[in-house]
Amino acid sequence: MVAEIVSGLEYSKKVLTEVGEAIAKTREHHPHFESVLAIVQVGNRSDSNVYINAKLKKAKEIGANGKLIKLPDTITQGDLKREIMALNHDNNVDGIIVQLPLDCKHDIDADYIIDLIDPLKDVDGLTRINAGRLARGELQRTIFPCTPYGCLYLVQQATGNPNFVSGKEVVVLGRSKIVGSPAAALFLWHHGTVTICHSKTPNIKEKCLRADILIVAIGRKHYVKADWIKPGAFVIDCGINVGDDPTSRKIYGDVDTEAAKEVAGYLTPVPGGVGPMTVAMLIRNTYEQAKRRRLPGKESNEEFDH
Amino acid sequence: MVAEIVSGLEYSKKVLTEVGEAIAKTREHHPHFESVLAIVQVGNRSDSNVYINAKLKKAKEIGANGKLIKLPDTITQGDLKREIMALNHDNNVDGIIVQLPLDCKHDIDADYIIDLIDPLKDVDGLTRINAGRLARGELQRTIFPCTPYGCLYLVQQATGNPNFVSGKEVVVLGRSKIVGSPAAALFLWHHGTVTICHSKTPNIKEKCLRADILIVAIGRKHYVKADWIKPGAFVIDCGINVGDDPTSRKIYGDVDTEAAKEVAGYLTPVPGGVGPMTVAMLIRNTYEQAKRRRLPGKESNEEFDH
Repeated sequence: MVAEIVSGLEYSKKVLTEVGEAIAKTREHHPHFESVLAIVQVGNRSDSNVYINAKLKKAKEIGANGKLIKLPDTITQGDLKREIMALNHDNNVDGIIVQLPLDCKHDIDADYIIDLIDPLKDVDGLTRINAGRLARGELQRTIFPCTPYGCLYLVQQATGNPNFVSGKEVVVLGRSKIVGSPAAALFLWHHGTVTICHSKTPNIKEKCLRADILIVAIGRKHYVKADWIKPGAFVIDCGINVGDDPTSRKIYGDVDTEAAKEVAGYLTPVPGGVGPMTVAMLIRNTYEQAKRRRLPGKESNEEFDH
Repeated sequence: MVAEIVSGLEYSKKVLTEVGEAIAKTREHHPHFESVLAIVQVGNRSDSNVYINAKLKKAKEIGANGKLIKLPDTITQGDLKREIMALNHDNNVDGIIVQLPLDCKHDIDADYIIDLIDPLKDVDGLTRINAGRLARGELQRTIFPCTPYGCLYLVQQATGNPNFVSGKEVVVLGRSKIVGSPAAALFLWHHGTVTICHSKTPNIKEKCLRADILIVAIGRKHYVKADWIKPGAFVIDCGINVGDDPTSRKIYGDVDTEAAKEVAGYLTPVPGGVGPMTVAMLIRNTYEQAKRRRLPGKESNEEFDH
């Protein structure tokens, strides 16, 4: 079997085009409608700069707005809190994200800062309130974290089946707050039978081999080998690992893609898989929240696959 | 193999005795120290009355205090909200629980009501904030839901190993907000490899057979058979099912205990297993919060196994 390579690049374009069309259509009736994403950056990490630029560029391309609040690495937790609160109260901001990791000289508790974000503007879906709602299966009341949401979207679209996850055995490698844990919850509440593996799991290969859907978010280059994959499985690679060559900016996934594609049924590549989907889902989440907040009475999600 | 029957009755006495001693010791230095649990009951379900009486009685036995706020089944959501807010602001209340299910004539959103409880008084650990913290692995910042906490305690105590869960394969049947979902999170963050099964899971028997620790919270009498159990496994039965005979008040677990005990390594009985542990952990949670709130600067948990 040769796996279908699931292009996050292509699917993210589809999502972004749909959001752009939705914004344009909304403006026919509400000419001043905006969908504004505020990105808070502390310090000046070069990898963060790359991600932030991608987000702002994609937002602009489809008629949404983004703005960067770039703060010095000398900022204190108190001052950063005040910045977040100001964005919470800014009526012209629909979504707020804090670019992680923070690049700061003082001790700042990133969880504390993220939890300050108004849950209705938490378009990364990372506040404990939205995480709690997702964990409890209150899917209509939460905002899906962007990377897991992108994973789910790829599965639904590539298989052509919105209910593909239901009844499937899903194995998630990694239990991070940003990817592994929320992916497990999202796939559980789409009725998968979910197993979460992590650094303390012995014999991970054996667990992977059970997976109809394998979500890998463990942060190690080519960690998952071809013989860890059940033939025909849907393999989603969330890894972003920089190679050893300092002169190259080449990135590698957590899955040994070249070998794995001989076994898997579907495979998301790195780069061009989950990465661009994350950006697209962020912009979509922002638009959905903009619509909810700016156009009261309008139901969200009506024009999108969910 | 004949399983060790893990007596929740005995272990709950141990917990309650320890909490009683801790309260007495605290009063040596703080003679007016109290640990007050407020139970909110809407309506008059007879099963709820039984559970509530057990909680109040056990609290009283060890020198903690309980009070019942019994509200008519005609109460509105707005009035119930006001009751919760009053308890949040009552300096003489340390823990608040809402007895579920609500027995009410009006439409009341139980999740909404529970989320009104001050997270620091949420001794059932069911608010979305505490659920979110648990889901994200912030164990020091949350309150463990009582039934999963009781399950964990039984495993640690019966095996004599506080780290017994680490590296084990844990299978949870059921994804309820009260038992299954938080049990999965709690055992995950004690480093188990956790699989969650539910009504949409095909071939549950096969999944159960993988479990080193099997937590059953599915609400069907004797659903799990002996041949679903891996020899030597630790089987935790959270079921409370009333039998078919209306003249008997006999309750049954979700596991066919008589047969299962020939296979399992450890088995919690019903009744006398998880049930009494739930009550004990509620009273312990209340005491811990009382100490945190009333004796600022004192670190909690210092005298307990955790």
